[in-house]
Amino acid sequence: MKEQPKTRKEFHDVMSFDEAITKYYNSISLESVGTETIDISESLNRILAEKIIAKIDVPPFARSSKDGYAVNAKDTFEADEEHPIFLNFNKEFIAAGSVPKKEVKENFASEIATGAMIPRGSNAVVMIEYADIKEDKIKIYRPVTPGENIMHAGSDMMAGELLIDKGQKLSSRETAVIATQGINKIKVFKKPKIGVISTGNEIIEVGKKLTEGKIYDTNARIVCDFCKENGANPTYLGIVKDNEKEIKEKIKFASKNFDMIILSGGTSAGIGDICYRVIEELGQIIVHGVAIKPGKPIVLGKVKEIPTIILPGFPTSASITFNMFVKPIVRAKSGLPKYEEYKKIIAKVAERINSEGGKHEFILVNLAKQKDNTFSAYQTTKNSGAITTFSFSDGFIEIKDNTNAILKDETVEVNLFNENTKISDLTFIGSHCVMLEPALAILRKKGFTIKILHVGSSVGLDAARREESDISPTHLLDEKSNEYNIAFIKNDNNLTLYKGYIRKQGIVFRKDIKHTTLKEFISNKNLRMINRNKGSGTRVLFDKLLKDISLKINIPFNELKKIKGYELEANTHSAVAAAVAQKKADFGIAIETVAEQYGLSFIPLKDENYDFCIPKSKLSKPAIQEFLKVIKSKEFVSELQKNKGIEVPKNIGEKIYE
Amino acid sequence: MKEQPKTRKEFHDVMSFDEAITKYYNSISLESVGTETIDISESLNRILAEKIIAKIDVPPFARSSKDGYAVNAKDTFEADEEHPIFLNFNKEFIAAGSVPKKEVKENFASEIATGAMIPRGSNAVVMIEYADIKEDKIKIYRPVTPGENIMHAGSDMMAGELLIDKGQKLSSRETAVIATQGINKIKVFKKPKIGVISTGNEIIEVGKKLTEGKIYDTNARIVCDFCKENGANPTYLGIVKDNEKEIKEKIKFASKNFDMIILSGGTSAGIGDICYRVIEELGQIIVHGVAIKPGKPIVLGKVKEIPTIILPGFPTSASITFNMFVKPIVRAKSGLPKYEEYKKIIAKVAERINSEGGKHEFILVNLAKQKDNTFSAYQTTKNSGAITTFSFSDGFIEIKDNTNAILKDETVEVNLFNENTKISDLTFIGSHCVMLEPALAILRKKGFTIKILHVGSSVGLDAARREESDISPTHLLDEKSNEYNIAFIKNDNNLTLYKGYIRKQGIVFRKDIKHTTLKEFISNKNLRMINRNKGSGTRVLFDKLLKDISLKINIPFNELKKIKGYELEANTHSAVAAAVAQKKADFGIAIETVAEQYGLSFIPLKDENYDFCIPKSKLSKPAIQEFLKVIKSKEFVSELQKNKGIEVPKNIGEKIYE
Repeated sequence: MKEQPKTRKEFHDVMSFDEAITKYYNSISLESVGTETIDISESLNRILAEKIIAKIDVPPFARSSKDGYAVNAKDTFEADEEHPIFLNFNKEFIAAGSVPKKEVKENFASEIATGAMIPRGSNAVVMIEYADIKEDKIKIYRPVTPGENIMHAGSDMMAGELLIDKGQKLSSRETAVIATQGINKIKVFKKPKIGVISTGNEIIEVGKKLTEGKIYDTNARIVCDFCKENGANPTYLGIVKDNEKEIKEKIKFASKNFDMIILSGGTSAGIGDICYRVIEELGQIIVHGVAIKPGKPIVLGKVKEIPTIILPGFPTSASITFNMFVKPIVRAKSGLPKYEEYKKIIAKVAERINSEGGKHEFILVNLAKQKDNTFSAYQTTKNSGAITTFSFSDGFIEIKDNTNAILKDETVEVNLFNENTKISDLTFIGSHCVMLEPALAILRKKGFTIKILHVGSSVGLDAARREESDISPTHLLDEKSNEYNIAFIKNDNNLTLYKGYIRKQGIVFRKDIKHTTLKEFISNKNLRMINRNKGSGTRVLFDKLLKDISLKINIPFNELKKIKGYELEANTHSAVAAAVAQKKADFGIAIETVAEQYGLSFIPLKDENYDFCIPKSKLSKPAIQEFLKVIKSKEFVSELQKNKGIEVPKNIGEKIYE
Repeated sequence: MKEQPKTRKEFHDVMSFDEAITKYYNSISLESVGTETIDISESLNRILAEKIIAKIDVPPFARSSKDGYAVNAKDTFEADEEHPIFLNFNKEFIAAGSVPKKEVKENFASEIATGAMIPRGSNAVVMIEYADIKEDKIKIYRPVTPGENIMHAGSDMMAGELLIDKGQKLSSRETAVIATQGINKIKVFKKPKIGVISTGNEIIEVGKKLTEGKIYDTNARIVCDFCKENGANPTYLGIVKDNEKEIKEKIKFASKNFDMIILSGGTSAGIGDICYRVIEELGQIIVHGVAIKPGKPIVLGKVKEIPTIILPGFPTSASITFNMFVKPIVRAKSGLPKYEEYKKIIAKVAERINSEGGKHEFILVNLAKQKDNTFSAYQTTKNSGAITTFSFSDGFIEIKDNTNAILKDETVEVNLFNENTKISDLTFIGSHCVMLEPALAILRKKGFTIKILHVGSSVGLDAARREESDISPTHLLDEKSNEYNIAFIKNDNNLTLYKGYIRKQGIVFRKDIKHTTLKEFISNKNLRMINRNKGSGTRVLFDKLLKDISLKINIPFNELKKIKGYELEANTHSAVAAAVAQKKADFGIAIETVAEQYGLSFIPLKDENYDFCIPKSKLSKPAIQEFLKVIKSKEFVSELQKNKGIEVPKNIGEKIYE
């Protein structure tokens, strides 16, 4: 009982999102933390803290842009292929980098190299291809106009021109321009130093051994790398347990050595309260609790004018609040514009999204590219405690206080998590098969980006119907016809089906179990199963097999379903095999391939057809065409054939229904 | 004469682009250069060289997602606000990170913190808000369903799941997922080491003093930073002059210490020949000369299986050939897909682009965003010797061998130079004014990206008519009405004009010149002028004033134009003032503001109206609305008023014509 906190901090005045932002940003400095001078060779991706104004003309002198002869243009006007004219050779070859010694007088010419200085008196260059030299005479076969083949001084950049403005993030485009001016030292904004502290008794440092009841410190990694991506220099200050003295020491230390302090990690109210009290004691709390979801418990304070922030413990809440409250501060202190450029994409909502109302909500979404280059946004389903909710999402939608829902097909702005977020070339929505991996690897090697949403066959076909998936892998058994897949798309003129391969589905279990039929497995009350997610073809198959047994042994399906573990759903075949191998479950239904991979026993139940449903409207997409080519390729077929439990039909990759 | 090369290398078999790529890539290794194990904290932006498969479930155990009471759900089914039910308190508070000691038996409950392990026997958590504790009894006001407020083990990630695939570039999204698994050491691809050698007698190292006839070594910077942006680790090996022995030593050294060698810099045939001979002697030339424009002289070879490439000397040619031939190799050796993802944007060509035909051409373009979020592509006009041609372009269009031209409005694919190329929020096409800078700075601070094409007032108005510019600043004097700007948009229903400010234009000259009228300036044969670019308002004004004088003194305009320097065009007011200050010219026409800035004398000629033409269809763009707000703002107006020669009208920022 000693660990119970004495008081629980209530949110006395939960603020609106806008109010919180305004109040906090007015109370802290959003200026950059200063500048430093660095070498141009170290400047890539740094933020320029000065204007680069051309000091010299570029080129600094009139240069020849061709190998040839420097002449007076008017001396050549009469020349043509039939009637070349003759000029006197100056007996000077002007090499690039040297200074011409002789003037080019009327009816004279000097030889000149590309990049060399145009000599006094000359106003054009005849290309070497249109001239011949013979002793001291030069034959010219083509006339040139004044200025021909000459780059004038300052024609690229003129001394005095503004070349790059302060605040520019430097890419190779800009460093090249700076180098041209001979500038090797430039002033950039210093990277703000950010102290990152993890809190909580349940947190274990990444790389150490995980003990019971603990989880790894993910938030520190998220926060540090977010800071880096926004121009700052984070330092991980380690984990502190819910020890007020220790937390106080850590924050005091950080406030002396950093430009900003970010705490996070602890999920319980207890640790939050301690951090809150410490900041209140050492400094000031500006905002405690904001009417947003997720992320309500965020604390925005300062210690000695150093912004000091407590992010909520759950990773998705921490990510969202970092993006909304902290990132603009980090960016401003780094010399970047407070808000990122081009972080928004317009998308249509794929399914109605409900909101609690009365709160500013951030809904995580995945984006799928449509045939007309527009985007569909799918709500990410996992909760704010999940890392994958955030990490595998493309961005988020904001729902403002008075909206109760966003309807299907409504247009929304999706805020991308970072400016480099890529929308995939190819979106798979449907059933997962590990055997597909080699095909995807080939595609990735060709430069295609791929997104896979494991939602099972049924939901995948729905997505195909709405033209939201590019490819929906499916293995659905029609109970009436006892046929796979075709029955489910028969009524839809917009779908096609391409042949995949045949997989052996069956019971996967450890070698110590000696049952031989599904009935024995489900009847043994000592065994725990692991199920597949609803809507997956494997789940449909399992439920069908249960129903068959139910009819045979005359026990209602609903009774039969009360197998231990029936409610626990894994999303992939691998996850089923892993759970069985690690004794978290005793059996499950999966394909033979994964049974082999995990050294498990296997009893076959059904040969099933794993095919690819593709919306007709999408067939012309290069990435889909490439996919169909790849699955027909020898390279992929021979990979498939290496696996036990896989049969490759002759017509793999061929259209089998439209 | 001694510097003249003995033989000039001819291109005996200039290859087609596709042939060159195929032949070269087949002759070298495109495998990555190996892997290394690094700490996760150093892994941002590195390329993963292994699959990350979940080793543990996340969360590793069932966790509470709320502060509250761990119960048996069925014990709470009867509870409501009016009729709370009572459970026995287990006298255990389960803190996050601790292991529960007591089982939750029927009608019992334990207190539990967010993130803490669910105790044996419990299958739901009642939130603290819906319970009261009194001594050893807990009052429950709301029922919970089984699983409520519990995050199941593995519900985020399941052991065995593929989390991140090999080849992924790591952003904070991925490092977070890896950290969750407790993995702190990961295998990434080694960065290939690339030796960068500059060649040529005319090249001076950046940072050193520029002497006559020389230029700064820009290509080395471009190549090094391109390599970095594509995952490699470049080393600048310095400049070698056209000394065969020295070049041989350098290449020998590089072939022992690097994974790839890139030479560039020298523009003349001479230095190119020497490098070619050395590679031929030490290794093998695979391709010499490709039918592309620009970039024909590229040399692709190898020394001891180390790809060894000579890029053309001109910066734009070097950039294009790097992108087309070298980048895929650098990427492949870095473990990235050979070709970059999403490097293409579809755009309409703004003006007809002519091609030579028979060559694979790369046309550099700038992009402007249109009202419907499509893009227009403008050909960049400068030549391949110019750095700005490349640096200030957004990307390039390819014209294949058999195309002679791309017509206006034809749709093309624009290849972006790098994946982060930003298309601006706001495109100014028209006349340049330094006084606008403070307004642009305010906009940039608000996060808007701005592109400015200095093309002068007339071309700017054409762009506005085609709805290609967002804002076309203009100061065009109508000779008939003697009125500024309005006359030029009068016949166009799609344009509006917004009031800007009034600038004093006049003669800018050094204080040592004592003339007082324009006639005196242009009549003094000892003086050299600097002109402005054709199409600029200032040029129009100057030509009009010349015509006035021409009539007055009865000398034909064409005679009068023969002022020294009339042909030399600067693109901006600042460039005119800089040229005069640096004595490259003696006088020019510019606004009084820059005369002040450069400490020059000024004789006023005309008060001119500098206004903003905006296509009606674009008015609703947020960036334009913000611009109009900013130019009306006190902040900007007071900045304007600090300058001599600027007058701010009351109606600044107001619509004056539509």
